[in-house]
Amino acid sequence: MIIDSSKKILIVGLGLLGGCYAMALKKKGYDVSAIDIRKESIDYAVEHNLIDRGTTKVDAELIASADIIVFALYPHIFIDWIKQNGHLIKKGTVVTDVTGVKGCVVYEVQSLLPEGVEFIAAHPMAGREVFGVENSDDSIFRGANYIVVPTEKNSYSAIELCKSLGQELGFADVSVLPPERHDEMIAFLSQLTHCIAVSLMCASDDPNLLRYTGDSFRDLTRIANINDEMWSELFLANRQTLLSQMDAYKTTFERLYNCVKNNDREEMRSMMRISSERRRNFDKKD
Amino acid sequence: MIIDSSKKILIVGLGLLGGCYAMALKKKGYDVSAIDIRKESIDYAVEHNLIDRGTTKVDAELIASADIIVFALYPHIFIDWIKQNGHLIKKGTVVTDVTGVKGCVVYEVQSLLPEGVEFIAAHPMAGREVFGVENSDDSIFRGANYIVVPTEKNSYSAIELCKSLGQELGFADVSVLPPERHDEMIAFLSQLTHCIAVSLMCASDDPNLLRYTGDSFRDLTRIANINDEMWSELFLANRQTLLSQMDAYKTTFERLYNCVKNNDREEMRSMMRISSERRRNFDKKD
Repeated sequence: MIIDSSKKILIVGLGLLGGCYAMALKKKGYDVSAIDIRKESIDYAVEHNLIDRGTTKVDAELIASADIIVFALYPHIFIDWIKQNGHLIKKGTVVTDVTGVKGCVVYEVQSLLPEGVEFIAAHPMAGREVFGVENSDDSIFRGANYIVVPTEKNSYSAIELCKSLGQELGFADVSVLPPERHDEMIAFLSQLTHCIAVSLMCASDDPNLLRYTGDSFRDLTRIANINDEMWSELFLANRQTLLSQMDAYKTTFERLYNCVKNNDREEMRSMMRISSERRRNFDKKD
Repeated sequence: MIIDSSKKILIVGLGLLGGCYAMALKKKGYDVSAIDIRKESIDYAVEHNLIDRGTTKVDAELIASADIIVFALYPHIFIDWIKQNGHLIKKGTVVTDVTGVKGCVVYEVQSLLPEGVEFIAAHPMAGREVFGVENSDDSIFRGANYIVVPTEKNSYSAIELCKSLGQELGFADVSVLPPERHDEMIAFLSQLTHCIAVSLMCASDDPNLLRYTGDSFRDLTRIANINDEMWSELFLANRQTLLSQMDAYKTTFERLYNCVKNNDREEMRSMMRISSERRRNFDKKD
């Protein structure tokens, strides 16, 4: 089952990511609807041709008419929504999401949905430091990674549909990972990096830093401007895995600290060479 | 004393930064010479009109003809050079540098130079992850900070000359800091950030990370591709100050670690809010 523009898509939660999905899919000719509690978001999206129609209410008819429903909500709101309204989703509909952590939602949502409605989780690895549908910009998907996160309950056709959705959205690379492996990757690549940036910003309140800063500090702390409500929920939803990755990082930082402390230049240079060699592979190819 | 293009400038050490200085100053009409042990660097710079002339030897006539000499060498090579050749610098010449740490060079170089030759230290806060004069690009100075680092021995006129050099090079902001305060700032803003990036790259050898990475990891580790010879020297040249900043950062990272460990969401959100508020001030204004 490959996606095509005859499919009707409903986006639940029209924030930044929901808006970017809508923008990308409308451009491809899909029929896109949205549900969001914020009337301004729906109005903005209709006015700017990001969606065909939208509502602030849980509209049974709209939900029943969707072929694919994308949830772009905080994890606990997503689960609550499914508990309250999951019965409105018609048989044959494919449900997907954008949640940044998977173990905490995927099994529960799959168990809550009615018979014949399949939930296939996905993680679009893209974002901005600004919020809301008003900042939608589907170019953030270009050059970025999209991960489909199936469980044993998922069908081959739903996995393929979800992969083709990632391609339609414009992602550079679409891959497939089990939930546990996904959460481990994300703990290291995304959650730990945010922990580091936040810790660094909290480590000094010197107002003069601003004047003397270089690009290295700016780049390293770009993500320190963080949505505290969302990220604290995601951190705790992946708590044990994140703690393991924080431990691994603390160990290497301590190793480097001891090199400086003990004037161990050779060991320091060896760490720097490993770091340089690994980092060279990470430059974007697009 | 304000700089003007009648001044003859000699650059000792024609790597990336030396090359960027040459490029910027030639564009402004200065007479620019260079000394570098690598013949290819001199040849490249002459061919690409970055310098008017250059040599791989310590040319007494060239040195004596310079009004301003810029040293763009590793700290220990800079000091050795002054020890061996400082007597060739004529009275009235102003000497400056680009060294990233100041306490370890500025007092010693000032004490080594002949009477009538003034050393005024400067730190151009700009760089690239590539090396060599072949990668010269003076646009790295745009939007960046330039710090003049005088001691009590420096004259008002040399400080002013050095400030106007920073402006001629195209820096967005030129400021003045004593060596100790400079080294403290740099330990936090530059050295600590490199320690963090190196530690993070060393914390996992999973080859699959590459496929699942997002921009946050890429940005945070951009500086993890590091010149190990130069940075290990700079770290150890600023050892105690760097250790203090590493300690301060370890403390805040541990605080966040404990928030995750103890499910303390309120404290975690409070750190994230402080981080976000501080970070918003750091966006480049140019």
